[in-house]
Amino acid sequence: MEKVVTFGEVLMRIAPLGNKKLKQSNQLEYYFGGTEANVAISLSQLGNATQHITAVSNDFVGDAAKSYLQKFGVNTSSIINSEHPLGLYFLEVGAVMRSSTISYNRSQTAFSNIDPKEIDWPTILEDCTWFHWTGITPALSYNAYKALKEGLRVANNKGITISADPAYRSNLWNYEKNAFETLNELVSMSNIFIGGPNEINELLTTTFAHTKEGFIAGSKLLMSEHPSIKKVFDKTRISINANWHKIRARMWNGNDYAQTDELEITHVIDRIGTGDAYAAGLIHGLLHYDDVMALEFANASCAIKHTIEGDANLVTEKEILNIIQGNLSGRIIR
Amino acid sequence: MEKVVTFGEVLMRIAPLGNKKLKQSNQLEYYFGGTEANVAISLSQLGNATQHITAVSNDFVGDAAKSYLQKFGVNTSSIINSEHPLGLYFLEVGAVMRSSTISYNRSQTAFSNIDPKEIDWPTILEDCTWFHWTGITPALSYNAYKALKEGLRVANNKGITISADPAYRSNLWNYEKNAFETLNELVSMSNIFIGGPNEINELLTTTFAHTKEGFIAGSKLLMSEHPSIKKVFDKTRISINANWHKIRARMWNGNDYAQTDELEITHVIDRIGTGDAYAAGLIHGLLHYDDVMALEFANASCAIKHTIEGDANLVTEKEILNIIQGNLSGRIIR
Amino acid sequence: MEKVVTFGEVLMRIAPLGNKKLKQSNQLEYYFGGTEANVAISLSQLGNATQHITAVSNDFVGDAAKSYLQKFGVNTSSIINSEHPLGLYFLEVGAVMRSSTISYNRSQTAFSNIDPKEIDWPTILEDCTWFHWTGITPALSYNAYKALKEGLRVANNKGITISADPAYRSNLWNYEKNAFETLNELVSMSNIFIGGPNEINELLTTTFAHTKEGFIAGSKLLMSEHPSIKKVFDKTRISINANWHKIRARMWNGNDYAQTDELEITHVIDRIGTGDAYAAGLIHGLLHYDDVMALEFANASCAIKHTIEGDANLVTEKEILNIIQGNLSGRIIR
Amino acid sequence: MEKVVTFGEVLMRIAPLGNKKLKQSNQLEYYFGGTEANVAISLSQLGNATQHITAVSNDFVGDAAKSYLQKFGVNTSSIINSEHPLGLYFLEVGAVMRSSTISYNRSQTAFSNIDPKEIDWPTILEDCTWFHWTGITPALSYNAYKALKEGLRVANNKGITISADPAYRSNLWNYEKNAFETLNELVSMSNIFIGGPNEINELLTTTFAHTKEGFIAGSKLLMSEHPSIKKVFDKTRISINANWHKIRARMWNGNDYAQTDELEITHVIDRIGTGDAYAAGLIHGLLHYDDVMALEFANASCAIKHTIEGDANLVTEKEILNIIQGNLSGRIIR
Amino acid sequence: MEKVVTFGEVLMRIAPLGNKKLKQSNQLEYYFGGTEANVAISLSQLGNATQHITAVSNDFVGDAAKSYLQKFGVNTSSIINSEHPLGLYFLEVGAVMRSSTISYNRSQTAFSNIDPKEIDWPTILEDCTWFHWTGITPALSYNAYKALKEGLRVANNKGITISADPAYRSNLWNYEKNAFETLNELVSMSNIFIGGPNEINELLTTTFAHTKEGFIAGSKLLMSEHPSIKKVFDKTRISINANWHKIRARMWNGNDYAQTDELEITHVIDRIGTGDAYAAGLIHGLLHYDDVMALEFANASCAIKHTIEGDANLVTEKEILNIIQGNLSGRIIR
Amino acid sequence: MEKVVTFGEVLMRIAPLGNKKLKQSNQLEYYFGGTEANVAISLSQLGNATQHITAVSNDFVGDAAKSYLQKFGVNTSSIINSEHPLGLYFLEVGAVMRSSTISYNRSQTAFSNIDPKEIDWPTILEDCTWFHWTGITPALSYNAYKALKEGLRVANNKGITISADPAYRSNLWNYEKNAFETLNELVSMSNIFIGGPNEINELLTTTFAHTKEGFIAGSKLLMSEHPSIKKVFDKTRISINANWHKIRARMWNGNDYAQTDELEITHVIDRIGTGDAYAAGLIHGLLHYDDVMALEFANASCAIKHTIEGDANLVTEKEILNIIQGNLSGRIIR
Repeated sequence: MEKVVTFGEVLMRIAPLGNKKLKQSNQLEYYFGGTEANVAISLSQLGNATQHITAVSNDFVGDAAKSYLQKFGVNTSSIINSEHPLGLYFLEVGAVMRSSTISYNRSQTAFSNIDPKEIDWPTILEDCTWFHWTGITPALSYNAYKALKEGLRVANNKGITISADPAYRSNLWNYEKNAFETLNELVSMSNIFIGGPNEINELLTTTFAHTKEGFIAGSKLLMSEHPSIKKVFDKTRISINANWHKIRARMWNGNDYAQTDELEITHVIDRIGTGDAYAAGLIHGLLHYDDVMALEFANASCAIKHTIEGDANLVTEKEILNIIQGNLSGRIIR
Repeated sequence: MEKVVTFGEVLMRIAPLGNKKLKQSNQLEYYFGGTEANVAISLSQLGNATQHITAVSNDFVGDAAKSYLQKFGVNTSSIINSEHPLGLYFLEVGAVMRSSTISYNRSQTAFSNIDPKEIDWPTILEDCTWFHWTGITPALSYNAYKALKEGLRVANNKGITISADPAYRSNLWNYEKNAFETLNELVSMSNIFIGGPNEINELLTTTFAHTKEGFIAGSKLLMSEHPSIKKVFDKTRISINANWHKIRARMWNGNDYAQTDELEITHVIDRIGTGDAYAAGLIHGLLHYDDVMALEFANASCAIKHTIEGDANLVTEKEILNIIQGNLSGRIIR
Repeated sequence: MEKVVTFGEVLMRIAPLGNKKLKQSNQLEYYFGGTEANVAISLSQLGNATQHITAVSNDFVGDAAKSYLQKFGVNTSSIINSEHPLGLYFLEVGAVMRSSTISYNRSQTAFSNIDPKEIDWPTILEDCTWFHWTGITPALSYNAYKALKEGLRVANNKGITISADPAYRSNLWNYEKNAFETLNELVSMSNIFIGGPNEINELLTTTFAHTKEGFIAGSKLLMSEHPSIKKVFDKTRISINANWHKIRARMWNGNDYAQTDELEITHVIDRIGTGDAYAAGLIHGLLHYDDVMALEFANASCAIKHTIEGDANLVTEKEILNIIQGNLSGRIIR
Repeated sequence: MEKVVTFGEVLMRIAPLGNKKLKQSNQLEYYFGGTEANVAISLSQLGNATQHITAVSNDFVGDAAKSYLQKFGVNTSSIINSEHPLGLYFLEVGAVMRSSTISYNRSQTAFSNIDPKEIDWPTILEDCTWFHWTGITPALSYNAYKALKEGLRVANNKGITISADPAYRSNLWNYEKNAFETLNELVSMSNIFIGGPNEINELLTTTFAHTKEGFIAGSKLLMSEHPSIKKVFDKTRISINANWHKIRARMWNGNDYAQTDELEITHVIDRIGTGDAYAAGLIHGLLHYDDVMALEFANASCAIKHTIEGDANLVTEKEILNIIQGNLSGRIIR
Repeated sequence: MEKVVTFGEVLMRIAPLGNKKLKQSNQLEYYFGGTEANVAISLSQLGNATQHITAVSNDFVGDAAKSYLQKFGVNTSSIINSEHPLGLYFLEVGAVMRSSTISYNRSQTAFSNIDPKEIDWPTILEDCTWFHWTGITPALSYNAYKALKEGLRVANNKGITISADPAYRSNLWNYEKNAFETLNELVSMSNIFIGGPNEINELLTTTFAHTKEGFIAGSKLLMSEHPSIKKVFDKTRISINANWHKIRARMWNGNDYAQTDELEITHVIDRIGTGDAYAAGLIHGLLHYDDVMALEFANASCAIKHTIEGDANLVTEKEILNIIQGNLSGRIIR
Repeated sequence: MEKVVTFGEVLMRIAPLGNKKLKQSNQLEYYFGGTEANVAISLSQLGNATQHITAVSNDFVGDAAKSYLQKFGVNTSSIINSEHPLGLYFLEVGAVMRSSTISYNRSQTAFSNIDPKEIDWPTILEDCTWFHWTGITPALSYNAYKALKEGLRVANNKGITISADPAYRSNLWNYEKNAFETLNELVSMSNIFIGGPNEINELLTTTFAHTKEGFIAGSKLLMSEHPSIKKVFDKTRISINANWHKIRARMWNGNDYAQTDELEITHVIDRIGTGDAYAAGLIHGLLHYDDVMALEFANASCAIKHTIEGDANLVTEKEILNIIQGNLSGRIIR
């Protein structure tokens, strides 16, 4: 079984129970997450070998983070132990028209202080089939950017497929590197692009519409600017409110356009990590099925994540296939 | 006040909180249930005298099960204490298109090892008006089947009304008796049939449609095959998804067909035991009202159970009558 | 910063978790509330100086009540310590067509036994801009009525704006005073009327319809009967069921009629205190904006309260303005 | 199986978890208790038939109280449903040198407003062997006193053994009856006195020392003043602090003095209801064993209650006999 | 890093919170344990590579069990997925003189139905240094015995050190094999004996005293009967009560006797698994230190386990060394 | 009522429940604390006016911190809102010989980035009687040191009494200022010294013994080196283990030596903040009583804090006086 490697910050998510405000109760619940780690956990639950590379604090908090990844089957043997604390965020969960809010504490963390030299990419990527990164990582620090770029370089040399989810978060980039220049550089080293007109417009300073036509035209331009990119996968979301969403996925693989049916989530349990569930479903689909089925897999994976508490999508392949086959009634399985 | 007697396995239901997967948290919650015990508890809450016959483990777990039934007013004085453990199941609660899943541990339990000779049916049924059984019981073991059959025999001799909910669960029948032969034998000793075309088709190897016509024709055939059956009660359910259901009840009492309005449950709290709530509402209705009102009572009882946590329907007659009168807005009662 | 003063009973609300019946679990959760205190807390969260006048038990329960108010920024320095217990209520939370039910324990409480002489209204109202009262207070006891009337008298002398929410609760009035005579007396000392045809009809023994026309005609009559009243604010609510509501606000300010768009709450988290959230939003709006914006503020404040656990509306002005601007998708704020 | 009847107020006990102050957390836990109900529950757990007579609120709180008693096997069929609320108290649990504190809300409760005519003592006491009362009941109200006295009169007529635990609580007596006159009157209708020099001194205005000699002399005087009293049972307690107690029991039965060994509770789990556990153990002992064994049973029952959460002693006869046999190491039973 | 392999049943432990009886609350907490798995987890926390061999149910319960082991670093790659349920037990935690009680549900479990042929011992033991077994395993079923014996055979062939903890539990042996004959057979294939006069007397039908002399003499006889045994390790425990213990360890290694100082646990947090902590500490000690230090390590490991919730000893080597160095004051480490 | 002003970092404390390791459960509990804020809260609970000066994050976490202080009566009106996150720490609670461990996340916090110019000391200290600081503050950052020094300068000018708790924590000082030079500078601006031979030896590079003689000699030297210091207060602690402590307080006020009796805490509930409780008790004592009584107050306050969950001592003056009067049995107060 060849493995998928992910690289990125692990964050502790701390939240009051239910829809309470932090000041309403002294009870909290935690999960560990982080966009790339979520992908690794989800891929592991789907039956793939996975390894996550990150840095955690050299104490019981970092130990708990590693234990969390191990619990869900992710290899943690190359995680770096750091003198700096683990990043974390507090979450207050909204409802209906009230937004959830997040308070980050991730500025001087174990991951952002990572020393690129401590990562032995050649060994880590030895038996690796797929490498996944997101735009969060280069945003966090120069060191994180350097470490990621070196990983991509080694992966390219080994012919490993690289998926990029270059989501740009303006409030994270707080060091001198130009965000879009950096992202373009990293995308040019990647093969699968997870994003649509919004992301393409940011990268290429274009104005493609969110329509099918805009998506295809944008994808084509992206592929011509970054010839390493072979396929583009996107999703569209309609948020009626915080509890009621509709999603649909679409792709351009250089030859064909495809889109899925819309899936409706009338009672959202947890919104966080649904994009990561999409990415994990996509990677799993591309590893084991054809492009159209991979798209269906990504969409169903994203949809079902809305029913899972925590950051990562803890469902089996069987549960996702069940949705793709149109079984949406949620009947009890005895 | 004459009593209703029920007979069947009491199961402990153990589940993580909310929509969590078992592996996500070390916190659990339990209820005691079991389809026939749920009917007894619900009838007790509606103001009827009830007694439940079962076997439980001879330790603090069995003691807790009996205490649970007592708490809700069910007579436990003839429950058998066994050397075998109490049956139980773990539940993971799904949402939207994600199914709830159940892991049973009920193969060598106190109930399936019940010794029919230990049940003193003549005494138990002395002041009894109604006896209720389901198809789960004969499925569990030959002993359970024998004990049930003897109970039905004694009840028949005493002229007690017998309601049958012969739901067939294929994965439960794991001993040599033929399931449908057995169920037909027991139905032929009963008076009120709770089921529709699906159940009739299984019993009589027919193919009645789920339509009104199919329901009536099937009911007529059932009554001619099993002349002891005098009335047939059914419900139809549309599951938009795990959180959003619509239900409606219908009946054929030998002379008349009737059906209720549809009740819509837009935010399901707990799906388990809603069929038992239907049965309990029906029995209560038939004991205290006419057939059509009993049908309304069954439907409203089933609907409101979707808003109650746990296996049994813990509502009062007043709350059900309120729904039958069309008060569906759920306003606060101060 | 000039302050808003409120006067009324503080109640402890005790409830089992989730949708459980009290007898289902030994776990409870509590909040402190009370219609006028809820208004004070909400106004405080919106950035206003507030002070609440009440009486609490002279022990750790009363101390916890005061601490609760302080936590949310309400001045408690003139709260009376009493030998009598704090009022409280138990709540069982319903769902869909099942009503929530409340069991009150508020007959011989610290507040209903309040001694009007213990309240130094002239000092309390010294730097006060706004005084708010509701019809609950005069219903509770003669002493409470006397204390309120004296507060209104002093406030009138100082030219303080007085808002009245004269909700009539028949089951509360259990002393000899005539309810409607009393309420009319107190309304005639007030300036802002929070209520519509229902409340006006009760006060004036009229039969205005709940339509726009009925609302305007009723408001005009009220203003002519009670010339101190300058503006009337109302809201309409459609309860599809306990979990799904639609609300809209309207006003008559002597010259103009206005109404807001309808806001839909598809997944109600907590229904209690939404009327108080309306009042607080209205007062805040009238203190800082024009009438129409105040109406929008009241409506949005009421709507978002349905997503907040507990009795009081713990949201910021920014969150409410966001809704008024039409941002209803509940997107995560990072 | 002949039954033990108890009569007294059922109180809801509400407390924050662990050693928290009420204001420290919004999480609470509840139990139902009350000194006489605790005795009934404990006797029921020891295998005796029991019935408790009281009044509860006619709503879901009163329903929960009755369910609680039923759960532990106490007959609730003659409990009165009242328009008044159930009594309750809040508890903050201390530790070491910090005292636990209690805030009562029991002044105008269902029980204190009990109508003596509503209790059908002749029927209730028909198959009764033992009647137990405490000094709390006559303290609560004149009605409660009248109802108790009538119960004692009927019990006397039927030759039922009556145990009296005449604990005097000064802060409860708030109506005109003289406390000690009343208690003497009721003791003169009883047979078993649970109390020692403290209680005797209060009743007879004497000054017996707490020594063995004082205990015997006091008991003799009590028996001569109240010839119906045949035996006196007492316990002594050394409280090193809130978590560490030592107890010992003694008796004078008219002929013999006896005392038990000291039992040491080094890690107290719950102090409340240990006196009631003593009374229940004593009654059970006197019903099934000789006086000295009854004394041992009372002492062991009291000791083990310190390890049980909640108000009532939920242990089996086997667990108590185990202690009497000197097995104090608390080894795991598999 | 060479690994330690353990083999045995994984049990789910389910318990109400704190010292509650099961019937007192619907809240539960779970851990996974099992004597051999506890050893594996503890060794893993101490920094050793470990692998546990067992069978679990082929559903979300078994998945949770495997995830639990993975979380703490134990290799689960050779665990068998079974159609049978996972074994479990309920626990009520006692205090002081009240015993904890356990209700087992482990008769027809995944492990007891294990098929010896499904275990590929040669591969599993390839890079293994140490194999550990206990007397629980052969007691559970003939299949379990066969599988264990085959494992020992292969381990012997590979020269792997084998530690035996042959604790005899009479209530577990419920198949035809003679318990002591079986245990002697398995001990004769082992090298390190964890047990003292009690265990030796059971195996050899002798009557050695629990004294130092009895321990040495018994150890010598055991070694002469079973020459494969090279060292014997024992511990003595004084249970003042369920919350207060004193322990001490001793050994005979064929040449020398040694014993540790007594460690006193004045406030026991969790008694379960302290013997397994001893075994794990011992194995770690023998792998990394000399015999006397291994004995100290076993004793300190056992002592500190009394302060850890759950079945397994989740402490680091540093924490144990700290105790061995005499730092017993439990000061906060910042 | 004149107020006490404190200045220092507010930290959020996050911990798993009970004695669990972080990785054992996803449930957490939080408190806000910080050594100086703890003093303010405790003084507020004792009836004094208090104000705390700090900086918190400008989001819902900082808002919760302020609400927490307000709840316990501390004035928060001059707290600075910062762009930086609030400091926090994770706690794993040990037992017996297992140490509690703390993982800090306080390096780039709102407080350590405080801008001294933002604090308007002259206004804050206007109606202030007492100012309290600790050695944690100057350790955190140069900015914090500068802000504190300016506060002391203004306080000195106004003749405000200043208490210093100059606890030196080596792992906190991570900027260029020399720790002991800095502490001496700040102590020389203070009047009451809370510390003994350990602290004096660190400041003055001496070797006074921990005996009475060493304490007095050290205090005399300290007073001669820092003539502003008028009184020295100390406590001694014997930690039998993490759950069992003994404490005693002593003082030298320039003329007299005094020491208290030893108080024994056999069942420690929470060790954190006991030193702060000592300081708060001392300040309260010195504000309201003589030196010897202040010493008793400090000791009793420290002792009872061991029974309070969380960081701050939430007890009343009455509870402390009760201990001083020798009432240590922890009897229930009804």
